[in-house]
Amino acid sequence: MKPFFNVLSVEQVHAFTQQLEPLASTILPLVQAGGRVLAADFKAPGDLPGFDRSTMDGYAVRARDTFGASETSPAYLELAGQVLMGQEPDFSLQPGQCAKIGTGGMLPAGADAVVMVEQTRSLDPTTVEIAASMAPGGHVMGRTDDAAAGDVLLPAGHRLRPQDIGLLAALGFERVEVQKRPPVGILSTGDEVIPVSQTPKPGQVRDVNTHTLSSLIIEAGGKAAPLGLVGDDREALTKAVAASMEQNRITLLSGGSSVGVRDLTADVFSSFDGAKLLVHGVGVSPGKPFIWVQAGGHQLLGLPGQVASCMISFYLFVEPVIQRLLGRKAEAFTRFGRLKAVLGRPAPSAPGREEYIRVRIEDSDSGPVAQPVFAKSGLLTSLINSQGLIKIPVESEGLYAGDQVEVFLFP
Amino acid sequence: MKPFFNVLSVEQVHAFTQQLEPLASTILPLVQAGGRVLAADFKAPGDLPGFDRSTMDGYAVRARDTFGASETSPAYLELAGQVLMGQEPDFSLQPGQCAKIGTGGMLPAGADAVVMVEQTRSLDPTTVEIAASMAPGGHVMGRTDDAAAGDVLLPAGHRLRPQDIGLLAALGFERVEVQKRPPVGILSTGDEVIPVSQTPKPGQVRDVNTHTLSSLIIEAGGKAAPLGLVGDDREALTKAVAASMEQNRITLLSGGSSVGVRDLTADVFSSFDGAKLLVHGVGVSPGKPFIWVQAGGHQLLGLPGQVASCMISFYLFVEPVIQRLLGRKAEAFTRFGRLKAVLGRPAPSAPGREEYIRVRIEDSDSGPVAQPVFAKSGLLTSLINSQGLIKIPVESEGLYAGDQVEVFLFP
Repeated sequence: MKPFFNVLSVEQVHAFTQQLEPLASTILPLVQAGGRVLAADFKAPGDLPGFDRSTMDGYAVRARDTFGASETSPAYLELAGQVLMGQEPDFSLQPGQCAKIGTGGMLPAGADAVVMVEQTRSLDPTTVEIAASMAPGGHVMGRTDDAAAGDVLLPAGHRLRPQDIGLLAALGFERVEVQKRPPVGILSTGDEVIPVSQTPKPGQVRDVNTHTLSSLIIEAGGKAAPLGLVGDDREALTKAVAASMEQNRITLLSGGSSVGVRDLTADVFSSFDGAKLLVHGVGVSPGKPFIWVQAGGHQLLGLPGQVASCMISFYLFVEPVIQRLLGRKAEAFTRFGRLKAVLGRPAPSAPGREEYIRVRIEDSDSGPVAQPVFAKSGLLTSLINSQGLIKIPVESEGLYAGDQVEVFLFP
Repeated sequence: MKPFFNVLSVEQVHAFTQQLEPLASTILPLVQAGGRVLAADFKAPGDLPGFDRSTMDGYAVRARDTFGASETSPAYLELAGQVLMGQEPDFSLQPGQCAKIGTGGMLPAGADAVVMVEQTRSLDPTTVEIAASMAPGGHVMGRTDDAAAGDVLLPAGHRLRPQDIGLLAALGFERVEVQKRPPVGILSTGDEVIPVSQTPKPGQVRDVNTHTLSSLIIEAGGKAAPLGLVGDDREALTKAVAASMEQNRITLLSGGSSVGVRDLTADVFSSFDGAKLLVHGVGVSPGKPFIWVQAGGHQLLGLPGQVASCMISFYLFVEPVIQRLLGRKAEAFTRFGRLKAVLGRPAPSAPGREEYIRVRIEDSDSGPVAQPVFAKSGLLTSLINSQGLIKIPVESEGLYAGDQVEVFLFP
């Protein structure tokens, strides 16, 4: 009954992800919108700044009246008036005229440049000596220099930073349309997994993934719904996944890296109406046991149980799904920093699969060194003490000490 | 009446900041603790993993029994038993004995190394041929290799990442003591500042800072309390600051870069009981008009009104105060990425002050190029289109095109 299914590449998984439709949007007050994702292009509601503005204290001029002027051969202009700050000038410049203007002032009609006050001299109440030749636009910020009406200031899919919130406020927007946060249900399975409150007997482990995944989901821009532990039998799993699907758009089921439990997970996921098995195994380590079934607009994702593998699988596969449902591109590691470093020890790898290795960053005289954190380290310290990941490409048999590597730094 | 006060350096301001006492702590359920700051060192509650554990499938041995063994000259050991996964072995190894063990299994008493199954051969039900010489500790994760009881696993002041939440869960902690988020009141002043909902008349600007600062405060780990606009007269300001002090530990007052309004701000701040004027001007651009008054455990901070200056002042001076009240180090730009780049155009600067210049990052064949975003660009585009800041040191007259720079990337 189980369809034949090949192991896919990470790129093939991301190609599926990129085809997902973003979720619906919602309108939020600006003060709640920090960190949220724009649902539509934000366009300039008008020209910005909307008028020609001086960037200097000095005199507004018609540039051609100053052509050839210099300290030894100044031009002489008639003072037509003074531009008052924050007011529209009620006069225009005729040929041979100039007007006093401050930084930020609006140029009178006819003017197209500003001469700095240091390059001028007031000879009498109506005559100004100009000792500089100005090109049109000199010391002027044009009416559309910030943006012309309709220009896209922030694209759909952009995550709102404090400066973007400021931009929206400056343009008079008190509300903004953002993507809804994808709700993600979290289930843990595995008969050896016990609640955090209990003390493990030999062979038991506490449910680390529910907490780690909740925190990861929130940081990725989703809404975390921890649903607790489920026994790894078909009936319990089916019931728990069905309950999650009523409330969520994504359901994560972690645990069960054994082939039996993985097949059970894929079977349970595939039992829902219209289910389509997209992924059953990926050529990547860690993260090989990743399972993805789509069912009626729901994304059912199976993750390995071991905490470090679970976390790296989240960054590789789940976060791109969340990003795509938020209207962003389906890429892994977008929230990671990048650091160029030199590998401190060899990192062997099996060709035929992409490999991600945790590294600790050490400083050296010749720059940062990435030290692989290998198997003997326990799960705990290897996660806590590593600062990032390096990728060994699918065709490589490993990297040598001294090789240049790019480190993806944990966010 | 106004005390004589010198302009300080950024480092002097941070030295004041570093003297602040962290705020009180609170206890949170683990699921709410992501991104929060640990209030006390988190120490290993016991040895981790707590027992000697095999990192391979194979045979547990007394290492000395294998000394000198090889494929051509193997050792022969008596099989004393099999270690069951997740159970404490009920036997110990005598000299000349070995025990079957799987990855993750607990070594029996007497054993101190594991031989990989590939280097062994089962000759009969009680005899195993060993073709490798093992050093003590080989293929074994020692009982304290992750941590010894009492080791600091996460220091006080550490911001909890998903993997840290996982660590706490793995060790059975359902609650964690974190720092309270410093509550920050936000006031805007300036007679030309109008609410976002209104349309500016010439010379008026919308209240951008309240929204930008709210968003910055939340991202920095504080609690934002926007308190709206206040007229720039002594009575109104005093009343508004007093009201903020009742609810908050930090009060920000932005606006009024003119000397008159700055002096009024300093006077109002200094009028509270026990007020101590720490800073009235800093040798930095932007950010020169920064004011800091301490009054009865409250931090009263005056910021420039212009939005880009206000934002950079926040990163330079306010965020370190928030970090310190959270029990962290008083440093600026800790949440910024770092990027080495080459300067694309000269960036002149006045010596005698530290200068921060916004830059846009462009790619080139020889690596990233930092392009200064200069004055002619409006406030809006310069903030939106720049990706970071470069610092021109206090003694420098500027940087040349082609100079190596370190870019602080906006978070």
